[in-house]
Amino acid sequence: MLTKKMLKYIQSLHLKKFRDQEGRFIAEGDKVVREFLLAGQFELITLCAEKKWIEYNKDLMSQLNPETIFEVNDQLLSRMTALKTANNVLAVFKNQQFEMPSLKGKISLMLDDLQDPGNMGTIIRIADWFGIKHIICSNKSVDCYNPKVVQATMGSLNRVKILYTDIVEFLKKQKEVPVYAATLGGKSIYEMPQIKAGIIIIGNESQGIDAAILKLATHQISIPTIGHAESLNAAVATGIIIARITMGK
Amino acid sequence: MLTKKMLKYIQSLHLKKFRDQEGRFIAEGDKVVREFLLAGQFELITLCAEKKWIEYNKDLMSQLNPETIFEVNDQLLSRMTALKTANNVLAVFKNQQFEMPSLKGKISLMLDDLQDPGNMGTIIRIADWFGIKHIICSNKSVDCYNPKVVQATMGSLNRVKILYTDIVEFLKKQKEVPVYAATLGGKSIYEMPQIKAGIIIIGNESQGIDAAILKLATHQISIPTIGHAESLNAAVATGIIIARITMGK
Repeated sequence: MLTKKMLKYIQSLHLKKFRDQEGRFIAEGDKVVREFLLAGQFELITLCAEKKWIEYNKDLMSQLNPETIFEVNDQLLSRMTALKTANNVLAVFKNQQFEMPSLKGKISLMLDDLQDPGNMGTIIRIADWFGIKHIICSNKSVDCYNPKVVQATMGSLNRVKILYTDIVEFLKKQKEVPVYAATLGGKSIYEMPQIKAGIIIIGNESQGIDAAILKLATHQISIPTIGHAESLNAAVATGIIIARITMGK
Repeated sequence: MLTKKMLKYIQSLHLKKFRDQEGRFIAEGDKVVREFLLAGQFELITLCAEKKWIEYNKDLMSQLNPETIFEVNDQLLSRMTALKTANNVLAVFKNQQFEMPSLKGKISLMLDDLQDPGNMGTIIRIADWFGIKHIICSNKSVDCYNPKVVQATMGSLNRVKILYTDIVEFLKKQKEVPVYAATLGGKSIYEMPQIKAGIIIIGNESQGIDAAILKLATHQISIPTIGHAESLNAAVATGIIIARITMGK
């Protein structure tokens, strides 16, 4: 049976402070939890689900340590959830710290203080769609283990490695990799040749990319507007840039 | 002074049923409300704002009918808001029904049962960014006057005309306009020549485009994946397609 202490523990993981301290994160919902279990990239700590869900997924459950599985009712799930609406399953996984391999010869993404969890999740999904395996985030970017981010990634967290670091220091060491900073006034993406390798930097939703980081970019690029909107959503801009400059003609 | 009856009236506009019946919609927040007032595309019915906001915007206020302006406190605003967090200004505008002009020679968008308000708002903003002036929505698509949509458009509703209609009947009449349906298995957007005119159809977030509508498309197109994500967010896909097939090389 799930104890009060465990419920409190799960609730504490709504907060970044405790996620960092414990090295744990929450994934919620049938599709997302199943993707994490099937991928096996993250170690399962605890799974709480309604009886029906456990029965429906009994083959999958039989492969797990039975001590990690707890049958709970919908009321308990609604006390655990970090989302607006509770799902019929919630799981706690062990998070991972990745060392970044050399980014030479690869397309990678870098996020400078991206704030919105929905944008972060959508960008991780975009990376996964385009086969991009590495995202480097500034330390002030929204936590990729935020429950809303995990939800929005739809499982793509299993295939995209994310590192939080001082990105100025990180960029100083990337001497052999071209760095493309998306910024107003940069060279039009419609006039660029296709690129095969490089770090593409996307900035904060309202402030863009910090000046100290812009200085370290080898190229400044932009999506020219022919209309009147002041800006594009950061995730939409990320998708447009990748599809336009990295994909075959 | 704002009466109880008026408060109830504003609250009723949170629901599509009453928005349709009254032909009114709500816009919230400094940036959004100011954009609507400055554009003058929609007639202002009522503006409720904190004293500070009204004083700060006194030049703009002096151009409005004083009978439409109500000074209210933050508590009252938090009772009016249709969003999670109240802003310091909320305004009611008269909505508009547009007749669609001929779409010949233009790039336009069509949405088949798009459901998510955030996606709808983001797509309207994308259209505005790329100078697309017309969006045709199926009758079951989320209401573009939904307060969350209005918020997400960041004012782009002033420049993009949106029509809700039976899109099967609509497409049957568009004999002279090529129709591009975004669907899995369609021709790769990376292999297409640039297009100068046409209707681009984006489908429902989980169901895609209805078979009856697909049949009426002259071209099926897709964004090939080279990774593992099952799908892309609908707004991201819209941005990628427009930037890839309609914009100059």
